[in-house]
Amino acid sequence: MQTRWSERFAQRTHGMRSSAVRELLKLTEQPDIISFGGGLPGPEVFPIERVQEACARVMEDSGRLALQYSTTEGYRPLRELIARHTARYGILIEPEHVQLTSGSQQALDLIGKVFINQGDHLLVERPTYLGALQAWRPYQAEYACVAMDNDGMLMDEVEQEIRGGPKFIYALPNFQNPSGVTLSLDRRQRLIELADHYGVPILEDDPYGQLRYEGEHLPSLVSLDARLHATDGAPYRGNVIYISTFSKTLAPGLRLGWVIAPEEVIQRLVTAKQGTDLHTATFNQMVAFEVARGGFLDQHIKIIRATYRERRDAMLHAMDRHFPDGVTWTKPKGGLFLWVTLPPDLDAAAVLKAAVSQKVAFVPGAPFFSDGTGHNTARLNFSYSKPELIEEGIRRLGGVLKSMMKGKSVAVAAS
Amino acid sequence: MQTRWSERFAQRTHGMRSSAVRELLKLTEQPDIISFGGGLPGPEVFPIERVQEACARVMEDSGRLALQYSTTEGYRPLRELIARHTARYGILIEPEHVQLTSGSQQALDLIGKVFINQGDHLLVERPTYLGALQAWRPYQAEYACVAMDNDGMLMDEVEQEIRGGPKFIYALPNFQNPSGVTLSLDRRQRLIELADHYGVPILEDDPYGQLRYEGEHLPSLVSLDARLHATDGAPYRGNVIYISTFSKTLAPGLRLGWVIAPEEVIQRLVTAKQGTDLHTATFNQMVAFEVARGGFLDQHIKIIRATYRERRDAMLHAMDRHFPDGVTWTKPKGGLFLWVTLPPDLDAAAVLKAAVSQKVAFVPGAPFFSDGTGHNTARLNFSYSKPELIEEGIRRLGGVLKSMMKGKSVAVAAS
Repeated sequence: MQTRWSERFAQRTHGMRSSAVRELLKLTEQPDIISFGGGLPGPEVFPIERVQEACARVMEDSGRLALQYSTTEGYRPLRELIARHTARYGILIEPEHVQLTSGSQQALDLIGKVFINQGDHLLVERPTYLGALQAWRPYQAEYACVAMDNDGMLMDEVEQEIRGGPKFIYALPNFQNPSGVTLSLDRRQRLIELADHYGVPILEDDPYGQLRYEGEHLPSLVSLDARLHATDGAPYRGNVIYISTFSKTLAPGLRLGWVIAPEEVIQRLVTAKQGTDLHTATFNQMVAFEVARGGFLDQHIKIIRATYRERRDAMLHAMDRHFPDGVTWTKPKGGLFLWVTLPPDLDAAAVLKAAVSQKVAFVPGAPFFSDGTGHNTARLNFSYSKPELIEEGIRRLGGVLKSMMKGKSVAVAAS
Repeated sequence: MQTRWSERFAQRTHGMRSSAVRELLKLTEQPDIISFGGGLPGPEVFPIERVQEACARVMEDSGRLALQYSTTEGYRPLRELIARHTARYGILIEPEHVQLTSGSQQALDLIGKVFINQGDHLLVERPTYLGALQAWRPYQAEYACVAMDNDGMLMDEVEQEIRGGPKFIYALPNFQNPSGVTLSLDRRQRLIELADHYGVPILEDDPYGQLRYEGEHLPSLVSLDARLHATDGAPYRGNVIYISTFSKTLAPGLRLGWVIAPEEVIQRLVTAKQGTDLHTATFNQMVAFEVARGGFLDQHIKIIRATYRERRDAMLHAMDRHFPDGVTWTKPKGGLFLWVTLPPDLDAAAVLKAAVSQKVAFVPGAPFFSDGTGHNTARLNFSYSKPELIEEGIRRLGGVLKSMMKGKSVAVAAS
């Protein structure tokens, strides 16, 4: 039986389905499952004591302010802190160029609201962040996809697709979600030049930039673009909008992200955010500022890096031991994820089903492809589980893969 | 100079302007201004100590859970609490019919996303809540407006407009924002019957329902509709979606609202919310649950009622003394606002300009009209300021009005 409300869903949401990733998060609530799904930080690295102290201080000193409505742009001291941190990378930014958002997911939604008309096409990586595809579905975006290798997007393909006039380029240069791949410095420079030459702006999504476990930090697209468009002493207003988040360096349960953009873009985002949720929770912004200030965040990130590096290594070593020939995977230098490619005839969704019966979960790769491909791929998260659970989970998953691939070869042999 | 990003704003957002209300909130940051703008709770009623204790308990007992990602639907114990509270009004609701949102503003945005196609028209009150008009602008809604008197929407006009087939009816039956008007019981029943007869669903927005300062509580539209569509022991799935918020009973700085809807509507809202901000802050939901539990919220609301009743009375008495003849206003039985009508030739925006020079602010009424009228109206908030400041602010505003109206009559006499 339908209600009258359910007879009236908007046409453009008729294709909207609940995401595989979010549904999988529900699985992780079962205490006996080992989950490589989701993109969850390891709860052991949450700075609980520091957050607790910050809550007490905020309520003690400024409870009335923290519980009240506040401005849509965000809590001024936090905007200043973000502007200062960004300036360390050589980009001159004022607090006026920073918009606080309810997680970086909201930044994607607001950018969709402000920039995407029905039928606009966007240039994205293949695969790309599922959450961006979900954010932009209601705005009826279309996609041109560019393949990646271990150094990120192939620049020949970028040049070919950029001529088609995409509204903007969406790139995750560091330890990409889902693939774990990092865009090389050469290609970053080339991407900036191409975007400048063809007049196509870039949206840089950088949730994991500070979570590098080996090698040297590479300059962000926004900082490379700033060198191209440098004007003495004037704030950056070039070709790149940059978004990031406290979800991976502090805590996702606070829902705090931000956008860095030219002031006239910030003004539009502010107007869109007013209609969307008025403003991000005052209390959370004040607590995050109290936690991050005085250099704490920089120190804390070192702990996160050490913890996740150990987990990444545990996963890579376990895969070497337990995964059968014919399965390949990326070796990310940072972030939360690695990316598995199965033999072409093996469907990752079928593998997941078998895996769940063995109490281990991951995310099938297909939803990360805007072009309907990727059925034999999978994303594995290594930040959430402790090394001994990672070892056990990969052992189980290896067993599932071996048994399914053996079944396939037997079936092939018998046919 | 435009950046490439600013050349690419979406067509549908070209009309988007920053709201008068939000810009006025900035004025209230000046400590020496008496503000009747905004819709701010009085900070004196925030339960700071209780929130502080709740923060400590949540971090102590469940810090890892509170700082982690969580499900899009919301924190289960809080959904259960809301379902139980709703059931007190005779509506059978399960936690599965409750979606937590980042303030009720986000509920409006999500409903726009899920239900409104370009060119759909909605039946709204005249004036109506500005935030709803802002939320639905990006979805390109159009409006049919129905006039109100002191008992709310005129039912003859509703019947006329409902025949035009609006997508849904948007109503704020209790102490409406901005007018302060309450829809009478007779008209509530008539509205439910008309909506049922013509097959048009209703969105009931009820942020202030519990803030009644005199008279008897009137049944909500959703509970009246439940009586019409009662099915023994089965959860409500009728013609009304109901939204409310903790912003007025607890604290707006936590950004917590909710939607009550049939399960298939909740599923669509969940999918839309995943793309919008993944989920509402886990920490805030757990803290709100800790604060509200054990009957605290019911007790606390009594304090809020007593405080705001005193402030409403202070404003009404001051207006009687200080406002000139020819200015009229509503006498709301609850909520946060009253509504002023100036002589037809007086522009409230001009009055505001003069008022700000006298260090008093309010919100001009025009933005609350979807049809471009209302230039001689104004919304005054009485919840934020203490009675002595209300008296002083109304005295100043009365002076401004007298001087401007005197100017007008002199000008008329001289012409």
